Amino acid sequence: VEFVRATYRLDAPPHAARERAELLALEQSVELPRETLRDERVVREVLPRVESIEPDAAGGSLARIAYPIAITGSDPAQLLNVLFGNCSLQPDVALADCDLPEGLLDPLGGPHFGLAGLRRAVGEPERGLTCTALKPMGLDAAALGELCFHFARAGIDVIKDDHGLSDQPFCRFVDRVHACLGAVERAVRLGARRALYVPNLNGAPEALAAQLEIAQDAGVRALLAEPMVIGLPLFRELTARARMPVFAHPALAGSLRIRPELWLGRLFRAYGADAVIYPHSGGRFSYDEPTCARIARRLTEPLGGLEPSLPVPAGGMTVERVPELLRFYGPDVMLLLGGSLYRAGSRLEERAREFVDAVARASPARGSAA
Amino acid sequence: VEFVRATYRLDAPPHAARERAELLALEQSVELPRETLRDERVVREVLPRVESIEPDAAGGSLARIAYPIAITGSDPAQLLNVLFGNCSLQPDVALADCDLPEGLLDPLGGPHFGLAGLRRAVGEPERGLTCTALKPMGLDAAALGELCFHFARAGIDVIKDDHGLSDQPFCRFVDRVHACLGAVERAVRLGARRALYVPNLNGAPEALAAQLEIAQDAGVRALLAEPMVIGLPLFRELTARARMPVFAHPALAGSLRIRPELWLGRLFRAYGADAVIYPHSGGRFSYDEPTCARIARRLTEPLGGLEPSLPVPAGGMTVERVPELLRFYGPDVMLLLGGSLYRAGSRLEERAREFVDAVARASPARGSAA
Repeated sequence: VEFVRATYRLDAPPHAARERAELLALEQSVELPRETLRDERVVREVLPRVESIEPDAAGGSLARIAYPIAITGSDPAQLLNVLFGNCSLQPDVALADCDLPEGLLDPLGGPHFGLAGLRRAVGEPERGLTCTALKPMGLDAAALGELCFHFARAGIDVIKDDHGLSDQPFCRFVDRVHACLGAVERAVRLGARRALYVPNLNGAPEALAAQLEIAQDAGVRALLAEPMVIGLPLFRELTARARMPVFAHPALAGSLRIRPELWLGRLFRAYGADAVIYPHSGGRFSYDEPTCARIARRLTEPLGGLEPSLPVPAGGMTVERVPELLRFYGPDVMLLLGGSLYRAGSRLEERAREFVDAVARASPARGSAA
Repeated sequence: VEFVRATYRLDAPPHAARERAELLALEQSVELPRETLRDERVVREVLPRVESIEPDAAGGSLARIAYPIAITGSDPAQLLNVLFGNCSLQPDVALADCDLPEGLLDPLGGPHFGLAGLRRAVGEPERGLTCTALKPMGLDAAALGELCFHFARAGIDVIKDDHGLSDQPFCRFVDRVHACLGAVERAVRLGARRALYVPNLNGAPEALAAQLEIAQDAGVRALLAEPMVIGLPLFRELTARARMPVFAHPALAGSLRIRPELWLGRLFRAYGADAVIYPHSGGRFSYDEPTCARIARRLTEPLGGLEPSLPVPAGGMTVERVPELLRFYGPDVMLLLGGSLYRAGSRLEERAREFVDAVARASPARGSAA
């Protein structure tokens, strides 16, 4: 029998944690008291096992539970159900970690392009990569296209939609895509490198499928989506159908009692994200540096045969922090600056060029990553 | 301009809450510092307004933000993005409430059958309703069908799959559906009322669509799904396509910093749930009685032209608590007992009949609801 092993943090001292963990194992599987289980096969093949209990350095206990892989049905939705379905309703339980055995990696799929595929798409095999966002929502397609043109002229590698840009009345998805792709080509004709424009797909499944078709027909070469907003199973299906790299944005994913390095770092990658955007320490969000380092490690470490995903730290970074960020992450990173470039007002393109230059100058040689 | 008004609980005293709320309004919309907004139309038509700041009785502050409905694109996914996308990553913010103006109710859809439709489906216009769950996972289709037969014989109104039953190797979805529908008909031939068998649909979109087709072809008359596991936008699409009532289960929905009466009570209903299962106070989960009362109220109160949804309290209830539960909820409720019936072992059918009798005896007349 193959197992999925998950580690939970329990608000219980080690002497009480064994009993709590046994209840948790029942809750996440058979949902029955142990003494009512009379079928020998259920006990032998289905019942998860509490494999270990350890004190957690931060208080409470860490319990490792091994789930027979069969109970996940090798399905992207049912796996979430098993890992954190019912116990999401029990505030004394947090999901700290889980492994992903071979038998699950295949149905989940993993990145179809990954870090290497994104480097190919932007034509940069070596240095740290640059990214910015088109905003604010409310501008029409022509205005967003104009911003895209300036960023492309400045040499930014990836120009993505803000994750709040959807199919809104003030700017339809189809119009934005054509305006921004046109802007990139205009910049190319004026001598710029061809930036990668990344539209945000967001909607119920039918709307999402229509947006994907528009993007594919228009010649878009990478996409952005919010896995928790559309649902991880739908996100996985999108990455399987996209035929191009997909960036994942962490909207709605921050408030689960699930450690971010597991959810954003391991699961988003396993569900197909070629790049994962997350808030770096010191900006508008709350992750500390060790958490950010763990997210980046989880995105790039060996995991079965899965491609590494590209870490995209974001959330209030500045040009001045570029050297520090590249020291922290090494070259296999894409730095995303948004608001701090917009603060330059009419000097936007110049400021974006300073960002590009700062990354080029500060990019460590490959192999010297922190 | 029509607005969606959302109330957030901020970890900030009232004198500091105004500034925090203004930053939140920017974060959830334009994602830019206020001073960089130079487009008059963006400021006028897109920028959300902080309408009020009040002290929260439990400490901190309550801030109400009015979002112009246009920024949601009237889309079920983008609405979630606006309400709690980025700020899910800011631990000082919780989503306490939101209204749903007419302009959103229509795209969201609401229940297609609702409480009244479920009463019609089980043929019971008056009393409180009964529900139980088929479990544990690991049993094969024949064994689950046998359990279903006994529950149907006992007169249970609704016999649903445990939410952990998926399309697993030990029991395929299609086999389970046919075994359980067959078991219900066998009980009918022996004189029982026709119980409503409710299979659990769970999977990535393609798998879910295949399960829906199997269910429809087999003559299933109601479904169960987990909106947070499959994603609320996909859940909404499922309810629109099902042509039968859909129950929502709260798996994975318990750990957001979003009040359960809003998420399970108002949003699950607006996204199409005809009935919502949630943990009642005093069982294995943590909601207190006032929270449960608020969930039930949100499911049934007038909301535009939306059908009321059926509250289905669950999670460790017992036959002994039936009178208390019906006093608490009144007749417009479906009581879900699982494990406590299974404890009866070989007396399962007898115990289930005691449950049915207890509900019939204790059902208050309509109009006397708490």
